Amino acid sequence: MKPGQWLIKVRDARPLVHNITNVVVTNVAANALLAIGASPVMAYAHEEVADMAKIAHAVALNMGTLTPDVITAMRLAGMSANTYGVPVVFDPVGVGATPYRNEAAFLITSSIRLNVLRGNAGEIGLMVGSGGQVTGVDSSGASADLPAAMQMYARQHRTVVVATGEEDLVTDGDTLWRLTNGHPLLSTITGSGCSLTGLLGAFVGVVDKDSPLTTYAQAAVAAITCFNVAGERAAQVAYGPGTFQAALFDALYHLTADEVNEAAKIEQMD
Amino acid sequence: MKPGQWLIKVRDARPLVHNITNVVVTNVAANALLAIGASPVMAYAHEEVADMAKIAHAVALNMGTLTPDVITAMRLAGMSANTYGVPVVFDPVGVGATPYRNEAAFLITSSIRLNVLRGNAGEIGLMVGSGGQVTGVDSSGASADLPAAMQMYARQHRTVVVATGEEDLVTDGDTLWRLTNGHPLLSTITGSGCSLTGLLGAFVGVVDKDSPLTTYAQAAVAAITCFNVAGERAAQVAYGPGTFQAALFDALYHLTADEVNEAAKIEQMD
Amino acid sequence: MKPGQWLIKVRDARPLVHNITNVVVTNVAANALLAIGASPVMAYAHEEVADMAKIAHAVALNMGTLTPDVITAMRLAGMSANTYGVPVVFDPVGVGATPYRNEAAFLITSSIRLNVLRGNAGEIGLMVGSGGQVTGVDSSGASADLPAAMQMYARQHRTVVVATGEEDLVTDGDTLWRLTNGHPLLSTITGSGCSLTGLLGAFVGVVDKDSPLTTYAQAAVAAITCFNVAGERAAQVAYGPGTFQAALFDALYHLTADEVNEAAKIEQMD
Repeated sequence: MKPGQWLIKVRDARPLVHNITNVVVTNVAANALLAIGASPVMAYAHEEVADMAKIAHAVALNMGTLTPDVITAMRLAGMSANTYGVPVVFDPVGVGATPYRNEAAFLITSSIRLNVLRGNAGEIGLMVGSGGQVTGVDSSGASADLPAAMQMYARQHRTVVVATGEEDLVTDGDTLWRLTNGHPLLSTITGSGCSLTGLLGAFVGVVDKDSPLTTYAQAAVAAITCFNVAGERAAQVAYGPGTFQAALFDALYHLTADEVNEAAKIEQMD
Repeated sequence: MKPGQWLIKVRDARPLVHNITNVVVTNVAANALLAIGASPVMAYAHEEVADMAKIAHAVALNMGTLTPDVITAMRLAGMSANTYGVPVVFDPVGVGATPYRNEAAFLITSSIRLNVLRGNAGEIGLMVGSGGQVTGVDSSGASADLPAAMQMYARQHRTVVVATGEEDLVTDGDTLWRLTNGHPLLSTITGSGCSLTGLLGAFVGVVDKDSPLTTYAQAAVAAITCFNVAGERAAQVAYGPGTFQAALFDALYHLTADEVNEAAKIEQMD
Repeated sequence: MKPGQWLIKVRDARPLVHNITNVVVTNVAANALLAIGASPVMAYAHEEVADMAKIAHAVALNMGTLTPDVITAMRLAGMSANTYGVPVVFDPVGVGATPYRNEAAFLITSSIRLNVLRGNAGEIGLMVGSGGQVTGVDSSGASADLPAAMQMYARQHRTVVVATGEEDLVTDGDTLWRLTNGHPLLSTITGSGCSLTGLLGAFVGVVDKDSPLTTYAQAAVAAITCFNVAGERAAQVAYGPGTFQAALFDALYHLTADEVNEAAKIEQMD
C-alpha cells in the first residue's frame, strides 16, 4: 500500500490517539493530529489512563518532560494498550542526557510491548546499543552501525524501530527503509519530532489487527513520508520558523494522497 | 445590551480571568484572552488558587487534562470564587470518556456553584442527563431533547448552560438562545472550545454584581458571538488550520462592536 | 562588545539552556531559543534537574505556574548550577499577586545565587523593595525610585537586575542601561517576557567563566536588544497578535548582527 493510501485510511477512520506527551509540545502534537484528520486526546491521570488507552486506536508515549507520575501514567496506559491490542508508539526523548531518563526508558520498555520505537539518531543509537550522543534533547550524531543495531533490536523486541534525522531509517528487523523527504526548517521548531510520534500513532492505529510487523513498518513509513512531504510544502510558503509552523499545519490539512505518492522518496535497502 | 456593547465593556474593564485549564491549550487560551482585551492568569498551586480566585473578575475551570491535584485546585478556586462573588465558568472536557472524568465533573459541580456550564453538545448532554456520546474529547452527537434538558438543569442549578457545536445553544433556564455564527475551521484546531471558556470568563466577569441570571446568559451569548464572528473573519484570510489559528488571534484583537452587532446571528427561541 | 557580536557568539556556541518554566509558555520559550540559535531543554523531575543543570550553559527559572514540586525543582537545579558555575536567570512571574508567590520568590532567591533577576517593572519593584503593583501577572506600575533600588539590590546580591516594560532597565549595581527598542505588540501575546528570560539564559550562557558582573550585564543588554529589535521587525509584517507571534520567530531566526547594532537604542545612564 502506497503512503498516500495510508493517509486516506487515516482520514476515513479518524483514529483516536491517546497521547502522554511533554508539556512543551502538547498543543503542537494535538494540532498536527487534528490537521492530518485524526482525533487526539491527552490524558495523564493514573485514575483514567488505562480506560482511555483501552478505547483509543493507538497510544503515543513521549518522555520529553518526565516526572515519576508521568512514568507511572505511561506504564499504566501502555499495559492497558497491550492488554486490549492497542498499538503503542514510544519516543524516548532525551535518553542519554541524564541517568534518570535512561532509567525511565528502561522501565517503560521493559514493562510495555512497543509497536514502534521512534527517536532521533542519537536517542535510537543509545536505545539499540550502537552508541550515540545526546546533549539536552538534541542528537549530535549516530554511529555507522546504527542500521544493523536497529534491525537487531527490532527482531529481538518485535517492534518497528524508527530513527529520524536528515534521513529517516525505519526497520521491522527484516526490511530497512531509508526515507529522504523533509526540510531543514523542521528542525527549527520544537515539537516536530513529537508531532511525528503522534502521527505514527494515527497511522499504526489504522493497521488491521493481527497484521504482521511489516505492515506496522509500512504504516510508519507512510506517516513519516506524509509528515515530511507536508514539511516540504510548508517550506515553500514559509519565511522562517514561525510562519513554517503555521504552514505545516495547513500543509498536513491539505495534503492529498497523490501529492504524497508523487513526492515520496522511499528506498527499500534490503 | 447588544453583543458588541459587551465587547466594549470587556475592553474597558480588562477583567482578570483566573484559568485552571489543561496543558494542551493554556497558551492558546491565554492569547485569546489577551487578544480580546482581558488579562489572563494561570495558577494551579493549592497554596494560592483561593487567593488568586478572590482577586479575579472570573474563574474559568477546564478539566481537559485532569489529575487529582487539578481537581483539588479547581475546588479550592471555585469555593473561593463562590465566597467572594466571583463568577465561575466550568468546562467538563471529555466527560463521558472515562469514569474518572464523570466522577471529577460530579465532584466539581457538587461543591461549586457555577455561573456558566459550557461544553460541546455531547458533554452537555451527559451533564444535563439527556444522553450524548463522547469519544476521547470529541462529541459525536446529541439527543433531540438536549434544549429541554439544558433548561431543566439551568433552572435546578441556577446556572447558564451552553452547548457549542455547529450551532450553539445558551439558556438561563427560562430563555433559550440559538446562535449560528462560526466556521468549520474552528473545529480543526485544538483549544477553540477552551479559549471560548476563557472568553466566557471575561464576559461574565464584567456583569454587575447582583444581576439576575439572565444577564449572565446575555454576557455568554455575547462572548460566543464575538468568538464565532472572529472565527468567520479569520477564515476569510486563512489557508488552513495553522494560518487560521494566527488569524483568529488577529481577528479577536481587531474585532469591533459594530462588526459583531452586524454579523451576529442570534435567535431567541422562547 | 556590541549586541550584534553577542548574537554571533550565541549562534556559534549554540548554548544549551535548561528551562524550568511555566506551562503557558513552554512551547513559545523553546521556539524562541531555537529561533535565535540556542538549544532549549525543559526538565522538571527532581530526579534529574541537578544533572541537567550541570551540563547546561545556563539555567532559566520562571515561576509562572508555580507548585511546590516546581519550587523544589528550581532550587535543585539552581543549586547544581551554582555548584558547577552555570549562570542562573530567575523570573519571579506574578510576585506580589499572592502570598504564596512572595514566599516562593523568597525561598528561591535565598537559596540560589542569581546571575540575572528579570521581571516586569511591578515584579522587580517588589523584589528590590521599591514597591510596585502586580495584578495577576500584569504589572500596573513602578515607582520613580525603581532604578536606585535596582542598583542597591544588584550590589547587595551581586546579580544583574532587569526590569522590562515600555523601556527596559538593566543594572549590574554600578552602571544603569536604559533600552528603548521594542513594540507594543509584544505585550499582546503571552510568553514574550518568558521567552526573553530564556534568551537571557542563552546570552549569559556564552559569557566566559570568571568574567566580572558587568560582562553579564552586557550580555543581558544584548539579549534584550536582540529580542526587541526582532519585535520591531515582526511588527512590520504582522496584522495582529497571531501573525505577530509567527513573525517574531521568523525575525529572531533571520536577525543579523548588523541589523541589531544599527537598530539598537541603548543609553548608558551612569
